[in-house]
Amino acid sequence: MNDCFYHLCSMIYGNITEVHLAYFRQVVSMAYVLTDEENLIRCASDHTEDLHHRPAVVLQPASADEVSSILRYCNEHRIPVTARGAGTGLSGGALPVAGGVVLDMKRFNRILHIDKRNFQVTTEPGVITQELQETLKAEGLFYPPDPASKGSCFIGGNVAENSGGPRAVKYGVVKDYVLNLEMVLASGEVIWTGANVLKNATGYNLTQLVVGSEGTLGIVTKIVLRLIPAVKHDLLLLVPFRSAVQACEAVNAVFLAGYTPSALEFMERDALEWSMKYVQSAGVSLPDDIQAHLLIEVDGNNMDELYRDAEAIAGIVQQYDIDEVLFADSHEQKQMLWTLRRKVGEAVKSNSIYKEEDTVVPRAELPELLTIIKALGNEYGFHSVCYGHAGDGNLHVNIVKAGMSDDDWHNKLPQGIRRLFTEVVRLGGTISGEHGIGLVQRPYMDIAFSEVQLQLMRQIKQVFDLNGILNPGKIF
Amino acid sequence: MNDCFYHLCSMIYGNITEVHLAYFRQVVSMAYVLTDEENLIRCASDHTEDLHHRPAVVLQPASADEVSSILRYCNEHRIPVTARGAGTGLSGGALPVAGGVVLDMKRFNRILHIDKRNFQVTTEPGVITQELQETLKAEGLFYPPDPASKGSCFIGGNVAENSGGPRAVKYGVVKDYVLNLEMVLASGEVIWTGANVLKNATGYNLTQLVVGSEGTLGIVTKIVLRLIPAVKHDLLLLVPFRSAVQACEAVNAVFLAGYTPSALEFMERDALEWSMKYVQSAGVSLPDDIQAHLLIEVDGNNMDELYRDAEAIAGIVQQYDIDEVLFADSHEQKQMLWTLRRKVGEAVKSNSIYKEEDTVVPRAELPELLTIIKALGNEYGFHSVCYGHAGDGNLHVNIVKAGMSDDDWHNKLPQGIRRLFTEVVRLGGTISGEHGIGLVQRPYMDIAFSEVQLQLMRQIKQVFDLNGILNPGKIF
Repeated sequence: MNDCFYHLCSMIYGNITEVHLAYFRQVVSMAYVLTDEENLIRCASDHTEDLHHRPAVVLQPASADEVSSILRYCNEHRIPVTARGAGTGLSGGALPVAGGVVLDMKRFNRILHIDKRNFQVTTEPGVITQELQETLKAEGLFYPPDPASKGSCFIGGNVAENSGGPRAVKYGVVKDYVLNLEMVLASGEVIWTGANVLKNATGYNLTQLVVGSEGTLGIVTKIVLRLIPAVKHDLLLLVPFRSAVQACEAVNAVFLAGYTPSALEFMERDALEWSMKYVQSAGVSLPDDIQAHLLIEVDGNNMDELYRDAEAIAGIVQQYDIDEVLFADSHEQKQMLWTLRRKVGEAVKSNSIYKEEDTVVPRAELPELLTIIKALGNEYGFHSVCYGHAGDGNLHVNIVKAGMSDDDWHNKLPQGIRRLFTEVVRLGGTISGEHGIGLVQRPYMDIAFSEVQLQLMRQIKQVFDLNGILNPGKIF
Repeated sequence: MNDCFYHLCSMIYGNITEVHLAYFRQVVSMAYVLTDEENLIRCASDHTEDLHHRPAVVLQPASADEVSSILRYCNEHRIPVTARGAGTGLSGGALPVAGGVVLDMKRFNRILHIDKRNFQVTTEPGVITQELQETLKAEGLFYPPDPASKGSCFIGGNVAENSGGPRAVKYGVVKDYVLNLEMVLASGEVIWTGANVLKNATGYNLTQLVVGSEGTLGIVTKIVLRLIPAVKHDLLLLVPFRSAVQACEAVNAVFLAGYTPSALEFMERDALEWSMKYVQSAGVSLPDDIQAHLLIEVDGNNMDELYRDAEAIAGIVQQYDIDEVLFADSHEQKQMLWTLRRKVGEAVKSNSIYKEEDTVVPRAELPELLTIIKALGNEYGFHSVCYGHAGDGNLHVNIVKAGMSDDDWHNKLPQGIRRLFTEVVRLGGTISGEHGIGLVQRPYMDIAFSEVQLQLMRQIKQVFDLNGILNPGKIF
């Protein structure tokens, strides 16, 4: 970490001169070189906690050639460059902590080619994930990864963070759909990372190295995704549990019985209650004795089979201490439940200053993880609201500041988080399932990795970006 | 390539002294330091063409600690080390072209932990893939990747080559199942590449970088695989086509209709005919006018649905010029058809000196690929037998020497292969789908990659193996 810090100090902290700006105006034209207060403030934050790191300038290129010219110049002049998608990240990955240039990718907003014959799409990174999904759906094609922010996040940001979402449990995460990437290197060279094929044993897998590398290895300018045929039907169940730990236990029981739902989400009572207040919905009754819910979706092309599966799953969860299962089969009811689930993060944020941890463990260890979180909360004096993709063992732990003193928040809590991550790793898990390391999890990387592993990663970073201009201060 | 060649020349070509042997005997005991003729010859070849590269010594370690001691020593003394699994590779990846040490991994033959609760298995790399699959199946668990050599190949070799097999079309390849690897670096350090979780956004994806890296980045000593619930039923169809190109066209029609078979294999007439002779089976009638077959499997847990799918697929292929579809629903009949398919490679090998290319293109480009292959055969005077995983766009092109002169074989044919790979890349494909680059495809890497891409890969190699002791002369 220290190396990295000194390295940052030696860089030009956003010290962009008129000469630099003149060059950028030549490359992307005057209109796309932004130094006004509003844009600098916009690019200083994302959806992570309450962080602010202003760039010196925001550039809005629209082609790989423009990105190439910018990177070549910045590399020569050692100017930090941080790519930004829609700014919905939850680990501070898009924040220009070393100042310099923010590459705002919003003009890369075209879906370039829908290849129906090959079940592939080539898209630019600045396309909103949900718009991409809906455009594809109209063609009978399905791109499953669906982060909670899908209505506003960019597909490029999803690639940078290897995002997941509820459907990952059945369909996998972003990395499972990326076939090939066009990427501009720090040197300005433009490469493709692979080929547009379903199987590839040709050299090192640069594609998979770049997915999830958080903009530290290059700037992705085109994305080739594999697609699957659209799925026709789904059913949704909401199961209220009187014990949160039992809800976690039930998750594994579903899989052990041989079922793979298309979503299996866990929400602690607070998560659902706060979300209902936030979206002003009274759609779900919430008796006093309910500690948590599971939201379980099954999908497929045969409605009879879905009903059979849903009933079988209902039978499995009924072995636990639950209240009445809600079967949502109307479109409106499903939408309402999914909205409640998707809005939990925003609801918590609107409620209190908070930190969100993105723990992930082997699925069967979830009950133990939840027990540990609550015990650590008692020990370190924090209240947590837990929810997330239980089917993947991916539990978001929202720690709310509420009544905690500033001193405890800044000094005692990090020790508690350190303890939490240590337990997560002991359970076979790791410190981020889908949000990335970015800025806020960086101090904990030594828990997940040995110095030897970190050194390998740092050296790989150097291979791609010798001068460390790309998103400096992130991951390591 | 030249750099690499000079680099090799500067290494100790198998110049193992008594001092070295004494050290090795200390590490793995006398019994596992082999210098006898039989073992040196055994480790000089794999299943690739007719290649022979003898090591100076074969070591059979049985623990990561032993591998670590060996690598540390070899790194210090610049002794080449090439790992070897079962020797079933098809690109010469396990051949010690620079001499030195072969690490024979056969003693790493234990399945260490079947974690039924988490649908995971931790295994050593020297376990035979089919034995692993059968052990897991007995526990209700399913590890899908099934290369043709599954009865003899090692799971470690599958990881090294990112192997596929017929089921990849529905279930993905090896990389889609590897969660975490224990690996010994050239320096002797032992690391894990990731964590035992289904989602991971923590640092660079070293796991996916190592899968398919052909033993050039480290020696894998433990493998953690994710598993899925066992599937109960399957049905198999054999469809005889009067036009091979139409058979390729039918492949895509099946997917466009929304079906994803669990296998969709293509075999040219020669492939099936030679395989029938090789295994002395008369199981399939082969009328004179049949040019190719598709072998189509569907699997699932609901037999009624499988019959419906199989009938629908039969309906789709009937739009082409086909003979009668064979529905194989007895276990014996299915076994017979799969044996014929799996033995094609060996059958071709027993028939003639040959070269096997492992082309892969976006699926819908298969008919064009087949047409190109035959046209190049006419132009360069070679006969080819094509078969493979058509559902993935992965076509194995077996070029048989037959009547070709030695001069044409050695001088003219490589030009034809170069033309073939150039066309494959033009179609959006690449030069190896599942066999790896190893030794034999190395001369063609410049077709798939630019110098910038190759330089990135070479530098990554250096990060892991500064002195280039691990499997030198492969990939680059």
